[in-house]
Order: sequence, then structure tokens, then C-alpha cells
Amino acid sequence: MTSAATPAYRRLSVEERRGQLLRAALELFAQRAPEDVSLDDVAEAAGVSRPLVYRYFPGGKQQLYEAALRSHADALNRCFAEPAEGAPTERLGRVLDRYLAFVDQHDTGFSALLRGGSVAETSRTSAIVDEVRRAAAEQILVHLGAERPGPRLGMLVRTWIAAVEAASLIWLDEGKQPPERELRDWLVDHLVALLAATATSDAETAEVFRALLTQETPEGPVGLLAHRAVPVLGEAARLLSPPGSGRLKG
Amino acid sequence: MTSAATPAYRRLSVEERRGQLLRAALELFAQRAPEDVSLDDVAEAAGVSRPLVYRYFPGGKQQLYEAALRSHADALNRCFAEPAEGAPTERLGRVLDRYLAFVDQHDTGFSALLRGGSVAETSRTSAIVDEVRRAAAEQILVHLGAERPGPRLGMLVRTWIAAVEAASLIWLDEGKQPPERELRDWLVDHLVALLAATATSDAETAEVFRALLTQETPEGPVGLLAHRAVPVLGEAARLLSPPGSGRLKG
Repeated sequence: MTSAATPAYRRLSVEERRGQLLRAALELFAQRAPEDVSLDDVAEAAGVSRPLVYRYFPGGKQQLYEAALRSHADALNRCFAEPAEGAPTERLGRVLDRYLAFVDQHDTGFSALLRGGSVAETSRTSAIVDEVRRAAAEQILVHLGAERPGPRLGMLVRTWIAAVEAASLIWLDEGKQPPERELRDWLVDHLVALLAATATSDAETAEVFRALLTQETPEGPVGLLAHRAVPVLGEAARLLSPPGSGRLKG
Repeated sequence: MTSAATPAYRRLSVEERRGQLLRAALELFAQRAPEDVSLDDVAEAAGVSRPLVYRYFPGGKQQLYEAALRSHADALNRCFAEPAEGAPTERLGRVLDRYLAFVDQHDTGFSALLRGGSVAETSRTSAIVDEVRRAAAEQILVHLGAERPGPRLGMLVRTWIAAVEAASLIWLDEGKQPPERELRDWLVDHLVALLAATATSDAETAEVFRALLTQETPEGPVGLLAHRAVPVLGEAARLLSPPGSGRLKG
């Protein structure tokens, strides 16, 4: 990690100074739990005095923490923006690439934030985290062409986002294994599988899944998954018919 | 809700009294966020004096909250125990029935606990919640016959548990819709779909999925899902072959 300190000879504007203090705080919060970061640490990392930190953040550490979180939330919301071009699962893959790069970069602080139990966590910080989850769900639904989803499709997308969060935390715990691309592909497969399974019992999801298929290609994520799935699903075929008949019912 | 108060004329043993205070606390924590429950509330609900509550819980509200949480964790761990008999997805269905009954019963307190941001949340309470998640994952893996899973299968089960948690919270938010059985069936389908998708890229999961199929029946959850999946997956078949050929590759 590089130091966030800026040489003393450079005069900073108010915005620059605020940004510099915030970056110093972000870096510290990324490395340690919030309770292990003091205002003195932030001042030292930024190469300024403690009173100067207070002038910009009169609410002290809690305010700095919330500003850092706000800045994370904004960065994540920017990750989610993706033009509606190409196969939806390829768009999703690009969003996940940016999201996982963010997780990779923020590491310990990202874990501390989502794991909870930190003294800096309040109903206000939880609300910011929830806002990011909501924004993520909205973006996924835009790309699925279902901006006002029914309850089952809404639940599907929100549970998948919870699974992505959990996977990110496990990924950090396990020394960032598997490689980012593999994790991303698996998360895309996860959503496709969930859509397919839910399409079997929910008419709206069936419609969305059908529309998704028309936008996918044999070489894209859904096409490749479908190819790999043929032998796996072939083994499930015996559950479709009385023993011995060995044929798929149409 | 019934009152947890016990008539004053009944003498309680130490264990009974502790249990009575804990039940009063559990009931209050189930209805309100921890910050909105005072020791006086607990004393009043239990029909005892505040000093008596302190005699049993010298750590005050935080100790009561942690004891309540501990009691929830133990109850949840009991939900997860299921004999290894019958199709694995049917066992899983029974575990989910018990889990959803617990969620239904504990409602607001369950949400507050998992949502985070409460003042009573500490690294100790987070550790208890994590312990429950770990116990749930271990039980699922026992029934999948993979007690020492490789990284991908381990991640699969843990992300599914995160999805179940998220689904429970959404379910509470949405006035407990869909009906419990429907949610349970969907969560089972979710796991089966995730196993099938992951089996296409991970050898261990493929092995586990194959073994699962041999224990399932045409009338069980996997058999019914497979039946319903035939038309849905049929539409994906065009991604398997060059346009126009219209045949499945083997």
C-alpha cells in the first residue's frame, strides 16, 4: 500500500483536502476494523494535524467512517452501470468484473463492513449498505427487462445478490481463490441456473428466461453452460420416467 | 403474544427464574430492536423487580441480549439435525420447514439480528451468528455426503445459506408471502439448480450431484423439478447447436 500523505508544500483546495483526508481514512479502514483506527492515525497518514481533521470532519471518526462508506457506496453504484448492449449475461459478467475488482481493492474494510459487529456500524451505515444492495438489484432487473418484478423474481434477484456478497467474503477469506474470472463465471452460472429453476414454477420468470435466451449466443455464458449441462442433466433423466423406459418426456 | 409474567405466588428455582427472565427478554427482543428494550421492560414483562434481573444478569441488557441470542442459536442448531433417511432433498425440506417456523415465530427479532446496525451487536454476537451459519453448512454437507468439501462445493453451500437468510428476511418484509411451503420448495429447487450448474465445472460437485440423483425419486423434489424443467430447458437447446440444426449435441 502507498501512503496517502501529500507533501506539505502543496496547498490543497477545500475539496482536495477533504478528498485527501477521506482517502487516508479509506486506506486505514480497508486495512483494519473501524475500532482499530483512531483520528490520530488518519491525521498521521494524511500528514496533517488532528485539529485539521476535526475541522473537515467535526463528527470525528464516526463521520469519517460514514463518509468513507458513502464514497464506497457511490463507487459500487458506478460499477453497476452497464449499457444495454450484447447478451445480458455478458453485461452481467462485466459488472461482476468491476465489482470483484472493488472487493479485491478494499479487502479487509469490505469484510468488516459486511460482516457487521463493528462499533462504527449504526442504523445509518446499514441503510447505506442496503441502498447499494437495492441499486444492484435494480440494475440486474433492468438488464433482465423486468424493472417492476413480481415477488418471486424480485426475491430471486435479491437472494442472488446476497449469494454474491457471501461469495465475495469467502473469496477474501480464502486468499482470493478461485481466480477472479472463475468466480465471476460461476456467479453468472448461478444466476442463470436460478432463473431456469424458478422459470419452472413462476410465469414471469419463465417469460424473462425465455427473453434472455433469445439474446444469448452459443458461445456466450448461457450457451457454454448449456453445453456443459447436457451430460449432467442427462443423468437426471432417469427421474423423468418409470425405471427402464430411459426416454425423456417432452 | 402472551405475557411471560409468572404469578408471584409461585416460587421458582434458579434455573426456572433464569429461564423466565430469558423468555421475557426473548419476547421483547422479538418485537423491538434491542435499543428499544430496557431492563425495566424485561423486569415488568417478567413481573419481577429490576434488581432481580440484575442478580441473574449482572451484565445488564447486553448480557441478556447475548443470552437470548445464544438461546436462538441453540434452537436453530437443533432445527438442523435431521436423520440421514430418505431422499436428501426431502430431508432438506424438513430442515427448512423447521427453520422457517423459527423465522416465523421470532420475526422482528430475527430481522434485527441479521440486518445488523443494532447497538447490541458486537464482534461476540456476530461470532454467534457465524457459528449458526457454519453449523447449517456442516449439516447440509453431511446430507450431501461431502463432510470435507473442496473450495467450490464449500462456497456453493455457504452462498446458498446466505441466499436462504436473505429470502427469510424478504419473506418477513413481505408479510410472509409466499406461503411457507412454497418458499421452502423454491429454496430446495435453488440448491438443486446450483448443484447442477456447479457440477458442470467442478468434478467434486459433479460427483455429489450424481450421488444425490441416485437417492432421489421421480415423485421427490428433484424428480418434480426435472419434470417441470423439460420445457424450460428445451428452449435453451437452440444454444447448443448452429442455427437451423435444431438437435441436441450429446
